Amino acid sequence: MRNLLVAQSGGPTAAINATVAGVLTAASLSGEVDQVLGAVNGIKGVLEERFVNLSDVMNNTVDLDLLCQTPAAALGSCRVKLSDPRENPEQYEEIIRIFRRHEISYFIYIGGNDSMDTVDKLSAYCREKNIEDICIVGAPKTIDNDLMGTDHCPGFGSAAKYIGSTFAELERDCSVYDTKAVTIVEVMGRNAGWLTASSALARNNGGQGPSLIYLCERPFSIPQFLADVEEKFRTQDSVLVAVSEGIRDAEGVYISESVQSGAVDNFGHSYIAGSARVLEDAVRREIGCKVRSVELNLMQRCAAHISSATDIQESRMLGMTACHCALEGKGGRMASIQRISDDPYRVKFTSVPVSEVSNREKKVPEDYISEAGNDVTEKMMAYLKPLIQGESPVLFENGIPRHIRLY
Amino acid sequence: MRNLLVAQSGGPTAAINATVAGVLTAASLSGEVDQVLGAVNGIKGVLEERFVNLSDVMNNTVDLDLLCQTPAAALGSCRVKLSDPRENPEQYEEIIRIFRRHEISYFIYIGGNDSMDTVDKLSAYCREKNIEDICIVGAPKTIDNDLMGTDHCPGFGSAAKYIGSTFAELERDCSVYDTKAVTIVEVMGRNAGWLTASSALARNNGGQGPSLIYLCERPFSIPQFLADVEEKFRTQDSVLVAVSEGIRDAEGVYISESVQSGAVDNFGHSYIAGSARVLEDAVRREIGCKVRSVELNLMQRCAAHISSATDIQESRMLGMTACHCALEGKGGRMASIQRISDDPYRVKFTSVPVSEVSNREKKVPEDYISEAGNDVTEKMMAYLKPLIQGESPVLFENGIPRHIRLY
Repeated sequence: MRNLLVAQSGGPTAAINATVAGVLTAASLSGEVDQVLGAVNGIKGVLEERFVNLSDVMNNTVDLDLLCQTPAAALGSCRVKLSDPRENPEQYEEIIRIFRRHEISYFIYIGGNDSMDTVDKLSAYCREKNIEDICIVGAPKTIDNDLMGTDHCPGFGSAAKYIGSTFAELERDCSVYDTKAVTIVEVMGRNAGWLTASSALARNNGGQGPSLIYLCERPFSIPQFLADVEEKFRTQDSVLVAVSEGIRDAEGVYISESVQSGAVDNFGHSYIAGSARVLEDAVRREIGCKVRSVELNLMQRCAAHISSATDIQESRMLGMTACHCALEGKGGRMASIQRISDDPYRVKFTSVPVSEVSNREKKVPEDYISEAGNDVTEKMMAYLKPLIQGESPVLFENGIPRHIRLY
Repeated sequence: MRNLLVAQSGGPTAAINATVAGVLTAASLSGEVDQVLGAVNGIKGVLEERFVNLSDVMNNTVDLDLLCQTPAAALGSCRVKLSDPRENPEQYEEIIRIFRRHEISYFIYIGGNDSMDTVDKLSAYCREKNIEDICIVGAPKTIDNDLMGTDHCPGFGSAAKYIGSTFAELERDCSVYDTKAVTIVEVMGRNAGWLTASSALARNNGGQGPSLIYLCERPFSIPQFLADVEEKFRTQDSVLVAVSEGIRDAEGVYISESVQSGAVDNFGHSYIAGSARVLEDAVRREIGCKVRSVELNLMQRCAAHISSATDIQESRMLGMTACHCALEGKGGRMASIQRISDDPYRVKFTSVPVSEVSNREKKVPEDYISEAGNDVTEKMMAYLKPLIQGESPVLFENGIPRHIRLY
């Protein structure tokens, strides 16, 4: 038996399941894989041998389509990072034992920077131990779009489409009164401003969209922000602001920090939220007009009902690419998208060494942000626009989208 | 000339513009109306004579369709309430003078409880002064669904569809990890829990949806809430909670009040938000597991990209009904929906005296809420289900929904 194991990790997205669908499709078409297994809750589920036989569960194209329209990791996720193999070789030996017990020749791990670290460590371990019958490959996933080695990440396009569309709707909502008002919308992004930048897509059809856009790549100054708002008020009543959750002042201190606890997540990232709320208070205190803060929160990563067709199809293609890598014995690589041109939009599906990806972050380049630091440039728009094209078909039943469950 | 004036008031919804489209359609088909004018910013715009000639601006069916898919009041809104006619007759005289100057024979005002008060006062003034050449009619609108005299309100069905779909997505998002976590989602609704109840629609296709649902009609107890969460934890890891913004304790004090200022809006309603945030803190303190709060905020009222086809079509029909009322001289009435049966869903478009509607609120009946007060009953589901059926077609351009602007 030559089985393939697939697992998902990190934060949910609207497109991560399409990668699983791609893996399933390529594996079943290849004729080289006996069974496709899914580990429940990522590498944690691998260690606990919690497997679902996907070849049994998913055996028609309708199920594959439903999988593609189901948000969040259908196989569950985890936030576990493997230890250093020199410090804890037992963990690695145990994983290889489990793979052998279940006749797993291929392991595809779908996730972000931290998950690519797992792929990197496991692949390196296999290389070092001359384990040649097991091939480990990564597939990218993150709404944050902060992975190196790929032009963009599955999940980002759908989140960007949701954010662009939502800012277009919010702009309409916030402009109904003829009184001065500020609406500050906080978008996810701890260190990379890609998602916040996509608020500018609200202008695609001539609408005003956000009046001001602040990415976390630039130092943030509250006095400058207040001056920017006052400047906008000279010509308009409603000022809609997009702001990254991770904006920091010139000293690198999170704007949200004044109201947050020092809590950290399992990876040691400090837990932050509430930059919009801090700015709301500043506007109320210093300008005194009507002001609101809004967080797009979890909705921006799981709004599969408004997925980008481009994103879902690319995600599927990356799953197929990862499967091909595995079958060809190209371990230690991550399936990736290489952009050939913006307009017409052309890409190539390829792979890169996972060591170039793991534990690194791709931030927004300087020239994608306006000089004043309160908007994005045409370069950013050219980059973003192709990623939200097309509406992925969604099957509604009884008035709400239908989802699939794998466990 | 016999012109018709239409205006919009109160908070934005995804369906309020379909009512304008209905008014325009019925007026142009009637052959009895010369021009349809729109007042910008409701009754405020009437007093300031800020009019748009809709017969000029909207003259093809594509524009009418675009109007139906554009969220928030396309004619702008206001939060102005007319004074008592005995205290300030000049305001009423001025409105009638303006109507005569623009040869307005019909005035249709689309809005909620407060807007129906305007229709009521203006109609009563006309009756008292024997003004027989001007007919004033109301059309309902509110995501809160709290208007008397109509089975349900345009805007509610689309908000309910967004909320049901979003809870289905959030339920998927929150269940990816195998660790105990509580996610508390705050839904709009100061005094009526209809919107919060629609979170239960997430279960329409067999999904779990919210684990606990608390409407503002029932007194809320934080200790009981914590006990409910602990009870759920006995059989599940992820507890998703839907909670009305306006939940109050047994003494009638808003749960959110401990962290809110005493600010009030223009109508004297106290400004509240943050009930979920208060509960988040209580869970963190008393249970100590992972916990998050999410506000659906403005998105729940302007997510036109996932409008209910039933809602949009009914909203259009109510606009036509209001226009017919006006043409037939039935002043002082509000167009309304009378439900004949749930399944098959059948309704009748009719009208009711606006005096039965204004300044009153329709709350959720006792038997629509579970005995324990932490869920809804089958009666509620039978009421809600028909209102979210069908997906209103949305024209996307360049990856985001296209909207129309009227001024």
